[in-house]
Order: sequence, then C-alpha cells, then structure tokens
Amino acid sequence: MAKVKVAVLASGRGSNFKAIQEHIKAGRCDAEIKVLITNNPDAPAISIAKDNKIPVEIIDKSGFPDREKMDERIKELLDRYGAELVVLAGYMLILKGRKLLESYKNRIINIHPALLPAFPGATAQKDAFEYGVKVSGVTIHFVDESLDAGPIIYQEAVDISDCKSAEETAAKILKTEHKAYAKVVDSFSKGHYAVEGRRARFVPSS
Amino acid sequence: MAKVKVAVLASGRGSNFKAIQEHIKAGRCDAEIKVLITNNPDAPAISIAKDNKIPVEIIDKSGFPDREKMDERIKELLDRYGAELVVLAGYMLILKGRKLLESYKNRIINIHPALLPAFPGATAQKDAFEYGVKVSGVTIHFVDESLDAGPIIYQEAVDISDCKSAEETAAKILKTEHKAYAKVVDSFSKGHYAVEGRRARFVPSS
Repeated sequence: MAKVKVAVLASGRGSNFKAIQEHIKAGRCDAEIKVLITNNPDAPAISIAKDNKIPVEIIDKSGFPDREKMDERIKELLDRYGAELVVLAGYMLILKGRKLLESYKNRIINIHPALLPAFPGATAQKDAFEYGVKVSGVTIHFVDESLDAGPIIYQEAVDISDCKSAEETAAKILKTEHKAYAKVVDSFSKGHYAVEGRRARFVPSS
Repeated sequence: MAKVKVAVLASGRGSNFKAIQEHIKAGRCDAEIKVLITNNPDAPAISIAKDNKIPVEIIDKSGFPDREKMDERIKELLDRYGAELVVLAGYMLILKGRKLLESYKNRIINIHPALLPAFPGATAQKDAFEYGVKVSGVTIHFVDESLDAGPIIYQEAVDISDCKSAEETAAKILKTEHKAYAKVVDSFSKGHYAVEGRRARFVPSS
C-alpha cells in the first residue's frame, strides 16, 4: 500500500501530531507527514516538526485581508506539498475558505474529545464531566462548513465514570485520541470513506 | 441483602419489564416487582405481569381532572405497595406531579436508548442512525421535572457502526438495555446513589 501524504494543521502543543508521528515511526501508521502548517509562530508543535525534519509553514493571520484569503493560502500550500489528507491537530481557527473546503472535501479530518453530537465546542471534556455522563469518548469527523458537525468517520467510547475532575477526564480521553487518530490516518492508506447523507462508510481499496 | 421493592410503570409491550423479571427469576437481580402500574388497559405488559402473578393497577387518564391529580394517584399506589424504586419501562407519559417527584426523588429511574445528552426524545435510535454516529448506547437516569435530563446513573456504549437501518440500530441497543436495566435495578439492593450537582455516584451499603 502507498503511504498517505498528510498535512498537519496545528496551533498549539500538537500532542496528536506527535502521537501520529510516533505511530508512523513505529510502523503502525502508513502515512508520511509532508508539512506542518501553523498559524502560531510560537506553537510547540513546531519543534516536534523540526525534530522529525518535517517542513513548517507559518501563516500569519494579520498578513491576510480576510479568512477566505488566508484559507486560500493554506490551500496553495496543501497543493504544493501534495497533501492527500489534511489532519487538524488542535488547529484553533475554523476553516472557512470555500475553495479550500471544496477542493479538499472529505479529505480534511478533525478529532473532537467527546462523542459528538454531545458536547461540541472548545470545552468538551469539562462539559461532559460537569454534565455527569459516565461514557464520553472521541469523534473523528470530516471538516465542512459546519462546526463540529461534519460526517463522522470514527468514534470510540471512553468510560469516565471514575474520573474525579475535568482534568482527569481530559487526560483519559487524550490517551484514546492519540491511538484513534493514528488508526484513522492509517485507514486512508487502505481505502477511502464514502459519504452518503451524513453517514460515512469505509471502502477498502481494491 | 434485602431485595429492593420495585414498582414498574409501563404503557406498551414492556420488554424491559419482562427482561428485569427474567433476571430476577434467574437470580441475577435482587429485586421484587410489587406492582405494575399502567395508563393503558391494552398494554401487552399486563399479560407479563399476570404470567408472573404481579398485581396490575390501571390508571385511566380520563378519570382525573389533570396530570397533577393523576400523578398523586400514582404516588398513593407506590406508597401502598411499599415501592422503594420506581422503574419506568416504556411509560409514555411524562411524570409531572410535584408531590410524586418530591416524595420519590432519586428513586424513579428511566432508561433511554442513546447516550444522553445526545439524542433525547422519542426517536433516539432513528435520530442516531440518521446522524451517522458510530457509537450510541444506553442511559439510565433519575427522573426529575426535566425531560431526559435527570442525573445519570449508568451509561453503556453500543457500537452501531455496522447497523444498516434504524430498526437494526434499535434492536442492537435494546439487547444492551435489557441487561443494563436489570444490573442497575440490582444495584439498588446493594447501595444507593449520592447525587452531587448533576453527578450521581454509587455508595455501597455498609
């Protein structure tokens, strides 16, 4: 099987980026990260890229008249690096560029630390803990113009009934995120996802 | 341990009622169902009760001026049969009586065929299937004045990624419902649930 060519977008620590790269190095994820694109020149993710000799592209929001133009620049970079799959790993801006979303339709994925549609938004683990759910989890979904509501590729439940705080909940879910994201990235080297209505179904390469 | 004295409220087929009764007979659920209360004189649940020599009380909504009075009648029956735990098993009316809800606070439980707060309401399995989630499940929660939003006692995930229809989804979740509900009813013979904020925590009897 050919390795899937991946671009990672991250704004912060990039712990999922790091986890995927480690799975790749361990031979458990048939992918090659061609570029890290970040909007944050101070993102710790940058040093992970440098440690692994992955090119880094920094995009400064202030250099663009609007988000449409900024996302066009992202699209140009994805094209240039030959990205087949775009992996959001803590990218804190919502992708809004129409050209980007159309050109990379069903090729941009995000991970969310809850079982969507429960607990969307930026404080999912805290929200789940405070709601008192016993089961939360991880959702990996395609990114479209909606917020946290693109077609779901993969979900995994995490038992949080013993968690004593929002922080403990987040830490437990993060462990599942790291494995799940690498597994899903790997799946793109072995097939694709057919999206019918809102339902995504894996179709292995023949 | 003493058996927990249960009243079941059902309006329809009562498949969860039947499952709990079977677990009791098999010695896997330390409970005794003292009465079936139904608002539907044609409910198939009635014959399950009769087969098991469980008294049946039929409450006709039209016989009461309002729901407050009807729920007062339910409270009287619960008191008379000495119910320690009230189990809703497909009871299609929302409990609204203030006296009933206060007197039996944290002693009325309901089962919902989804991982709340995702997919509340009467068509949870269909909604989950159509949304395209890969993981749904079962929630058992205390009943309060809210709809499907009382403190959660128990949740169990069900992988529905292979389900091909809403019906298949419902059937798969129902199997988990039957086991989970009997397990939670049994837990009330071994302790109680402390509710702090929205979070419910099992406290074993000393």
